[in-house]
Amino acid sequence: MKKSLIALAALAAVSAASAQSSVTLYGIADIWVGKVKGGKVMAASGGVNTSRWGVKGAEDLGGGLKANFNLESGIDLGNGAVKGTLFDRQANVGVSGGFGTVKLGKSWNALDDMFGAANSGFDSALSANGVWLNGYTGTAAAQLYYATPDLNGFNAAVSTQLNGNSANGATKVSAFNVTYTAGPIYAGLGYEHDKGTGQKGTMVNGSYDLGKAKLLASVYNTKPTGAGVKVNSYQIGADVPLSSAMTLSVGYAASKPNGGQTNSAFGVAAAYSLSKRTTVYAGIRAESVKASNGQPDRDVYAVGINHKF
Amino acid sequence: MKKSLIALAALAAVSAASAQSSVTLYGIADIWVGKVKGGKVMAASGGVNTSRWGVKGAEDLGGGLKANFNLESGIDLGNGAVKGTLFDRQANVGVSGGFGTVKLGKSWNALDDMFGAANSGFDSALSANGVWLNGYTGTAAAQLYYATPDLNGFNAAVSTQLNGNSANGATKVSAFNVTYTAGPIYAGLGYEHDKGTGQKGTMVNGSYDLGKAKLLASVYNTKPTGAGVKVNSYQIGADVPLSSAMTLSVGYAASKPNGGQTNSAFGVAAAYSLSKRTTVYAGIRAESVKASNGQPDRDVYAVGINHKF
Amino acid sequence: MKKSLIALAALAAVSAASAQSSVTLYGIADIWVGKVKGGKVMAASGGVNTSRWGVKGAEDLGGGLKANFNLESGIDLGNGAVKGTLFDRQANVGVSGGFGTVKLGKSWNALDDMFGAANSGFDSALSANGVWLNGYTGTAAAQLYYATPDLNGFNAAVSTQLNGNSANGATKVSAFNVTYTAGPIYAGLGYEHDKGTGQKGTMVNGSYDLGKAKLLASVYNTKPTGAGVKVNSYQIGADVPLSSAMTLSVGYAASKPNGGQTNSAFGVAAAYSLSKRTTVYAGIRAESVKASNGQPDRDVYAVGINHKF
Repeated sequence: MKKSLIALAALAAVSAASAQSSVTLYGIADIWVGKVKGGKVMAASGGVNTSRWGVKGAEDLGGGLKANFNLESGIDLGNGAVKGTLFDRQANVGVSGGFGTVKLGKSWNALDDMFGAANSGFDSALSANGVWLNGYTGTAAAQLYYATPDLNGFNAAVSTQLNGNSANGATKVSAFNVTYTAGPIYAGLGYEHDKGTGQKGTMVNGSYDLGKAKLLASVYNTKPTGAGVKVNSYQIGADVPLSSAMTLSVGYAASKPNGGQTNSAFGVAAAYSLSKRTTVYAGIRAESVKASNGQPDRDVYAVGINHKF
Repeated sequence: MKKSLIALAALAAVSAASAQSSVTLYGIADIWVGKVKGGKVMAASGGVNTSRWGVKGAEDLGGGLKANFNLESGIDLGNGAVKGTLFDRQANVGVSGGFGTVKLGKSWNALDDMFGAANSGFDSALSANGVWLNGYTGTAAAQLYYATPDLNGFNAAVSTQLNGNSANGATKVSAFNVTYTAGPIYAGLGYEHDKGTGQKGTMVNGSYDLGKAKLLASVYNTKPTGAGVKVNSYQIGADVPLSSAMTLSVGYAASKPNGGQTNSAFGVAAAYSLSKRTTVYAGIRAESVKASNGQPDRDVYAVGINHKF
Repeated sequence: MKKSLIALAALAAVSAASAQSSVTLYGIADIWVGKVKGGKVMAASGGVNTSRWGVKGAEDLGGGLKANFNLESGIDLGNGAVKGTLFDRQANVGVSGGFGTVKLGKSWNALDDMFGAANSGFDSALSANGVWLNGYTGTAAAQLYYATPDLNGFNAAVSTQLNGNSANGATKVSAFNVTYTAGPIYAGLGYEHDKGTGQKGTMVNGSYDLGKAKLLASVYNTKPTGAGVKVNSYQIGADVPLSSAMTLSVGYAASKPNGGQTNSAFGVAAAYSLSKRTTVYAGIRAESVKASNGQPDRDVYAVGINHKF
């Protein structure tokens, strides 16, 4: 019967396609037009998310196990350049299953996993916490990473850079996180210690979704062991859904070096979803930054588009 | 009924695949073997088109709107290197619809859209207009770009680099084009002004398809405001279909700096389509280039292959 | 009838997908954790294979002909960096058919095709022949390459870099190989001559599959014409299948510069296939390297994962 042959032929072709579909080409194209205080109208990549492209895949190994790999590259949509080395964000392979996830290579460390979980609205160039004076490591080379499975809402992860690698440069970061999620509640604790630079960072954050608004708060402290000073930072905010497609976000962030003056910033932003993958946004960040902290105010006005592929 | 289940399963799998297929990995691999006057036999990338690879996609936003992104990288097939920064050719995102197309990021400027529309045969390394002494900007960073929809054969576009971006370097280009297409006729006007370097360029080109041959002509003039001299350039040519698969192209180009001597070149080339996506080609460019213009003759003999993927 | 329409719709969508599937995104993610003598615990890319990603495709031209292209990039999973230029491993296009395969661009030379065919177990960072003092060219720019079709088990290939290309740098390599495969037997001869550096290299290798073990042997000699010395190298080994999923590999390699002392190494490794595309492995390489050869012993202990996508 011709009809069923057609259907079977279609099925066969589909199966072949499905086997290949385990490799996914993905990314985010995010760019905004706006003004930084004192400057001219400009375009810059990454208002909400860092622009990126990557390749990832998973292979079913049977018995609930999967092999996973990920290559991910940050890009500057302003000029088309790569950010750092090609696969600066992710270049790792590992196995996941009932025991959790193990991966090896370049990957985000365990502090980074939860660092931005209570950011308000924008999680990138326009984030209110752009005034924070204490940084963190983010992605790290030659890293062994383990994340637990979900245990009644609890999740945890540990990561460490292997010391035998010269590619690490100055950084020798070990980190962990523990998070808890239950219905409207999220709470997290994260920590990193860089034996190379001596910096220790502790992040505590949380959120509560009231339905009409999601309240957000983070505290981040760093304690250098060398000549550097301790820095205490925090931010509070709220994401307010105005409609099914529109969200208003407000945030306030402050950062104080030990014995120094306090930087602070207020941000307000609205994001409107054109579709599941495309959002347009507009936002303002008003800074009060002290000259003693070595920076001028960089108030930002921006209108942008974020497209996930 | 098993049969229809199979068909439905196939359909479901296909739909999932289609959703992903909005991301397309594409490119051109073009390389030729030949000789440049005075040199040995060599291989070089891009006889007909610049070799490239890219990722692009479109998402249907409903209401006739689409979100579009494009990342595109020039490559040298001779040695595998990237040309310039990774996504030097395209790194942009935008929206299109009944109103036209808007995009933001690194993209070809509005002059470039129509610059090569009346080139004869080869549009890259072997083009007769390789003797032209006046260049143009091509792709530009931090650019806001708008193209109209088609209006009874008329199309237009404008583009401008945002001045607040340091990534622009010396270039601060604004450009526009207007083109008209109707049956066998094409005519175009393009203009760019680089406020950074002071150069203004005007291109007028057109073509007429007689059926047995397509006649082509371009005039390109640049008027620097600084110490540089004006340059007047033109080219004429014809593409002659010898069969459904084979096209013969002839072209003549000349370029004269104000108060200087004239460069000229004659090119003849044949392209044979092995398929819709693969073409083999052979061509000659004979140059008469004046030493006062700072270049030796670079007569080229080439045989190559162009494969689009 | 609705049912057949669904099937036909599925088929149509599948056909569209199939046309695109001629472009394949592929690669290998391979990384190990271990120790090199005198160093700390480290992670390094490429225990079994060099980590890589690439894009390749083939287009059916009819008449048994295909157009083929390949772009391939080596990557360091340790830090996410590209190895060399972006498409350092492969950047070529060509045609294949009953006559064989022709390609042009950057590609592996004809010696490389068979160079590792009789390596034992690991073919990359952990290979016993890491103590060999004579290198070879591998991938070469601006190269014209031809491989014959299979002729009763015989295969041959020739490659040459075109001399007119400055991108070649110092290398001007021509190479060929002849191999023979019949049932359990493989034998190969390969040769390269670099007119730039003056080095000539000859590889003879072979293997015999007894079923319970596959015996492997290679001899590689280089004869520099300049101030460099001749180097004679060899390796012997065996791959022993312990089960359908597990293979034990042993190898011994030695290398002696003319008038100098002999480097040697012994390697043993086990590879366990988790699936068709994912393997975990563990291995040791114990070196006896002479100080007169300018290197310390670099004994390696490693446990790793190799995932093909």
